[in-house]
Amino acid sequence: MKVLIVHAHPEPRSFVGALRDVAVEELTPLGHEVRVSDLHAIGFRADTGRHDFLEAADAGYLKPQREQMHASERGTFAPDVGAEIERLLWADTVLWTFPLWWFSLPAILKGWVDRVFVMGTIYGGGRIYATGALKGRRAMLAFTTGGPAASYAPGGFNGDLNLLLYPIHHGMLWFTGMEVLPPFVVYGPARMSDEERAAALDAWRERLRGIERLAPLGPDCGVPAA
Amino acid sequence: MKVLIVHAHPEPRSFVGALRDVAVEELTPLGHEVRVSDLHAIGFRADTGRHDFLEAADAGYLKPQREQMHASERGTFAPDVGAEIERLLWADTVLWTFPLWWFSLPAILKGWVDRVFVMGTIYGGGRIYATGALKGRRAMLAFTTGGPAASYAPGGFNGDLNLLLYPIHHGMLWFTGMEVLPPFVVYGPARMSDEERAAALDAWRERLRGIERLAPLGPDCGVPAA
Repeated sequence: MKVLIVHAHPEPRSFVGALRDVAVEELTPLGHEVRVSDLHAIGFRADTGRHDFLEAADAGYLKPQREQMHASERGTFAPDVGAEIERLLWADTVLWTFPLWWFSLPAILKGWVDRVFVMGTIYGGGRIYATGALKGRRAMLAFTTGGPAASYAPGGFNGDLNLLLYPIHHGMLWFTGMEVLPPFVVYGPARMSDEERAAALDAWRERLRGIERLAPLGPDCGVPAA
Repeated sequence: MKVLIVHAHPEPRSFVGALRDVAVEELTPLGHEVRVSDLHAIGFRADTGRHDFLEAADAGYLKPQREQMHASERGTFAPDVGAEIERLLWADTVLWTFPLWWFSLPAILKGWVDRVFVMGTIYGGGRIYATGALKGRRAMLAFTTGGPAASYAPGGFNGDLNLLLYPIHHGMLWFTGMEVLPPFVVYGPARMSDEERAAALDAWRERLRGIERLAPLGPDCGVPAA
C-alpha cells in the first residue's frame, strides 16, 4: 500500500501523535510506503483564499471552485496546496489521525479538505461518489473523543457516532469516490490509565495489520436513514 | 436583540456577503444592535495552538482544554480569541453566514468554534446542552449550497440536510445551550438568475423580520433517530 497519513494535533506528544507514530512503525516493516502530512508541524494554512493559487482566473471576484478549475488546468496551485494534492493522488490508502473536536474535524484538517479536494482534479465534471476521481482508493478515520463510548451510541447524549461522522464519511471521503473503512475510535484516552492507553495502541496495531482485508462501510456509510 | 453575525466567505461581494449585508440593513432599523465578525476580513486564524493564550498552564505539553480553563480563570486569552469570546457573550442571537463546503463549515468558521467555544467559559463543569452556559440565547445558520434542494432531501444523492447539519446544530450550538432556529438555506445561488437571487434575499428579509417569533428546532435538531 501507499499510505498517506494526514495528521492534525497541535501537541506532538499527544495520544493522537502516538496513533500516527504507531501507524508508521507498524506499516513500514510490512513493506508499505508511508508518508505523513503533519498539518500543525508544517504550519498548514486552513483558510481558503487567493494564497491557494499562483495566478487568478478572475482577479476581480474570488470564486474558489472557478480558481481551482483554472489552477487544475494550468498547474498553478500554490506550493503548499500542490504538494498535498500530489501526495493525495500518490496514495491508495488515506488515514486521518485527529481528535474529534466539536463533533467534527479540527479546523486545520477541514482546511486541508477545503484547499486540497479541488474541483477540476479531485472532483468535478460529474465525477462524484461511485464515479469519483479517487475511486479504488480507501480512507479511514482514526480519532479520539473526549466523552465515553456510551455517549456516542444511538440514544446516547452526544448522539449516534455514525450520524456525527456522516458529513465526513459521506460528504468528504465517499464524495470523492474513496471507499470508507470503519473508523478506529479511542474514547476518552485522557481519562485512561497508562495500561488502558497501551491496550488501545495494541488494538490500533491489530487494526493496521488487518487493514488490507477490512471491508468498507458501503455507500450509506452506516446511516441507512439518510 | 443583540445580534452577532459570524461571517465566513473569502469574497466580500459574494452572495453570502449579501446575506450578511441584508441582515445588517434589515435588523438595525428595527432597533436591534448588530455586530459582525467577518473572519476572512480580519484574518482570523483557524488553527488551535499556543497562540490562543498569553501564558501557559503547562508549557511542556499543550492540552487545549487545560489551557482554555487556565485562560478562563486568569483572563489570559490572546486578544483575537478574547475579543470573539466577549462578542459571543454579548449577543443573545448568533447568526452564522457561510457557504456549506464539504457538507460542513468552512475551516475558518470551524476554527472560530474550536478557538472561541472555550472550556471554562462557554462549557465545562457539566454545563452542556439544557444546562449550557449559553442557555437562553438563540442561534441560526444562514448558508448557501452548491447543489439543488432535491439533492439534500431524505433519499437525495447528497443525503438529508438535517443529518448533514446535525454535528453543527446539535454538537456545536445546542451543546453550548443555545436554542437552534431552523436554518435559512439558499440552494445553488451560483446557478440562479438575478431575479431568483433577489427573491432569495427577499425571503431572507422576511425570515429576519420574523426571527423573534421563530420556534426553535428542539433538542433533537430535526434528527429523531439520533
